[in-house]
Amino acid sequence: MALVVQKFGGTSVGDAERIRAVADHVARTRRQGQDVVVVVSAMGKTTDELLRLASDVSGTRPPRELDMLLTSGERVSMALLCMALADLGVDAVSFTGSQAGIITDSAHTRAKILEVRGDRLREALAEGRVPVVAGFQGVSADRDVTTLGRGGSDTTAVALAAALEAESCEIYTDVTGVFTADPRIVPKARRLGRVSFEEMLEISASGGRVLVLRSVEFARNHHVPLHVRSSFTWEPGTWVVEEDESMEQAVVTAVTHDTSEAKITVTGVPDRPGLAARLFRTLADRSVNVDMIVQNTSHEGTTDISFTVPRVDLDTSVQLAGALATEIGAGEVLADAGIAKVSLVGAGMRSHPGISATMFETLADEGINIEMISTSSIRITCVVRADLVEQAVQALHTAFGLDGT
Amino acid sequence: MALVVQKFGGTSVGDAERIRAVADHVARTRRQGQDVVVVVSAMGKTTDELLRLASDVSGTRPPRELDMLLTSGERVSMALLCMALADLGVDAVSFTGSQAGIITDSAHTRAKILEVRGDRLREALAEGRVPVVAGFQGVSADRDVTTLGRGGSDTTAVALAAALEAESCEIYTDVTGVFTADPRIVPKARRLGRVSFEEMLEISASGGRVLVLRSVEFARNHHVPLHVRSSFTWEPGTWVVEEDESMEQAVVTAVTHDTSEAKITVTGVPDRPGLAARLFRTLADRSVNVDMIVQNTSHEGTTDISFTVPRVDLDTSVQLAGALATEIGAGEVLADAGIAKVSLVGAGMRSHPGISATMFETLADEGINIEMISTSSIRITCVVRADLVEQAVQALHTAFGLDGT
Repeated sequence: MALVVQKFGGTSVGDAERIRAVADHVARTRRQGQDVVVVVSAMGKTTDELLRLASDVSGTRPPRELDMLLTSGERVSMALLCMALADLGVDAVSFTGSQAGIITDSAHTRAKILEVRGDRLREALAEGRVPVVAGFQGVSADRDVTTLGRGGSDTTAVALAAALEAESCEIYTDVTGVFTADPRIVPKARRLGRVSFEEMLEISASGGRVLVLRSVEFARNHHVPLHVRSSFTWEPGTWVVEEDESMEQAVVTAVTHDTSEAKITVTGVPDRPGLAARLFRTLADRSVNVDMIVQNTSHEGTTDISFTVPRVDLDTSVQLAGALATEIGAGEVLADAGIAKVSLVGAGMRSHPGISATMFETLADEGINIEMISTSSIRITCVVRADLVEQAVQALHTAFGLDGT
Repeated sequence: MALVVQKFGGTSVGDAERIRAVADHVARTRRQGQDVVVVVSAMGKTTDELLRLASDVSGTRPPRELDMLLTSGERVSMALLCMALADLGVDAVSFTGSQAGIITDSAHTRAKILEVRGDRLREALAEGRVPVVAGFQGVSADRDVTTLGRGGSDTTAVALAAALEAESCEIYTDVTGVFTADPRIVPKARRLGRVSFEEMLEISASGGRVLVLRSVEFARNHHVPLHVRSSFTWEPGTWVVEEDESMEQAVVTAVTHDTSEAKITVTGVPDRPGLAARLFRTLADRSVNVDMIVQNTSHEGTTDISFTVPRVDLDTSVQLAGALATEIGAGEVLADAGIAKVSLVGAGMRSHPGISATMFETLADEGINIEMISTSSIRITCVVRADLVEQAVQALHTAFGLDGT
């Protein structure tokens, strides 16, 4: 029988009524003749509440114990979902990450999946049961409970779909799919029927919030078709699949934006090999996730280096950069929390020159200044003032013919 | 190094402040040169809240999933306690029932401990760490999560103390020990310094609420000294130990009472062998826990049988007894929810005749009618009207010289 993995996020199992609605849908899928493995997140804001409790109790919060704490959340949602399924006559059985055989490394709070054993899931499926698996969690070789970090439940779902050779992995969420832009900013944004893994990676990396980058990478590497859809309307959503020749290649597939970053510029960096490496090694050692990096051709023996970091890491980053600047005889360190990124993503860019020119012209026509530019083969990103980013998204969405009717 | 097991109940870890207070105490115990294994319950009313959530979601609530749900509670408290201990520089590490090697049978929601492996606890102790273990939970041979039922955390603590050969098991609660009577009813009740296992068994069985019968039985069978004490005042409490010659044997150690039962009388039961057996087998098959049973000598070929059952099982029991009475040609089935039990417990009763006479006289002087009587070698129990039971407890406490100053 064809197998599908269905993953339900926190809002999809937010209360008793939502859990019963999810159970209805799983039961319906079974009646349509499919085997189902379910992956659930913790209910609603449970994880945030547990983190607040931890802050109330402790200043140190050892990561191993944080993982023990947070993994209580999925136990609740998966047990309740199994109960709701039992009410509908569906024989469901819950499994923790450990019981499901999700083996990870020992990096607590951000563990990586090393292996999916899944024997108990295969047994349950063979017995005609529906396994309901805790997302976000696994077990290390030391038999300690681990969590996979942000977006971990999506990663669990994709990893199980790969290990169990599911036909697809359905990611249920509170939106109806992946859109050409954020519909809250662009009312005429359209839902995409299909996007390629490569486009989805760029969309996720440049601010699209529906899927976490890591789960898309995992799906691409393991050839797992994803179907992003709503657990409120249950309508078909967006398929994320391998790129193929027959796929219509829109020049631009989506306009994304990201307001979570800040910009740092180090001026007057002496033009000697290895200085940039020292700067970014220092930041990496403190787990600062540097995103865009722009360095201009040097001028009179010095150059300016600009880069963006998550805004929450701005103070730390300025401090580290400042210390290094003094040490190497660079100039000032300038911090700017008022920026945002706007990006165009589209596999068609590869074969259509001139996209960037149109993008820059569109922004210029709106009077929006571009502060940094970076590109990949299927993406162009510009840094602009944060208070102009919505205007930028709207203008680009129209300019590239993405507006729906 | 001497090892002590310290168990903290739900009120003892009820909020962030309480958890930090418990951490302080554990750290203090360590500084005094003792190894410590901690056992915790879920915080405050967590278990009740989870049960309510389950009722909101489902009518069936399969026991396996109930156990998965409820075991989330201890994960939270044990992880938080480990964090609080880390703040104090104590290297603590949490273990689920499964990780601690608490192997149970497969009777979900009321599992029995079959074996305590405890290898990971021994390793942690050898490394100078404080293991913090989830009470109330274990794992079956099928690798499913189980719970131990009411009072399960006490049982976990005692089982660990036995397996790890601890010097004692400290049960921390919201009262300062075991009293000669319920202090809410008898203000002059005194805290007992020591009681024997046998007395404690009778106290627990006859209405004393501090320790659950099952954990006392386990402690007696495995020779684990218990120390019942307060997690609010931290003062020394009541030791529950082996009876020894040197122990001062008060004639009466405590007066207990129990208002949770109801009485059923089946009149005119034909005096034939096997009828009482059929009655109580029928009740046992429906898991009704029959407590006192009184049958008088038969009179003119029939007899009356009276017994007490938990009040929640009264309707079921009357129905079952009624059907059987019709079948065997007995008389009426009378139900009475207005009764209570009052008991005297004391190891000294064995060598002091006349205690029951004094008890009956005391009750008679108070104008309290005795409806049923049952005795063991160290306990006498009378059934009286429920609205007179507090008066009975007070009078007996005074009559047997238990009043403190």
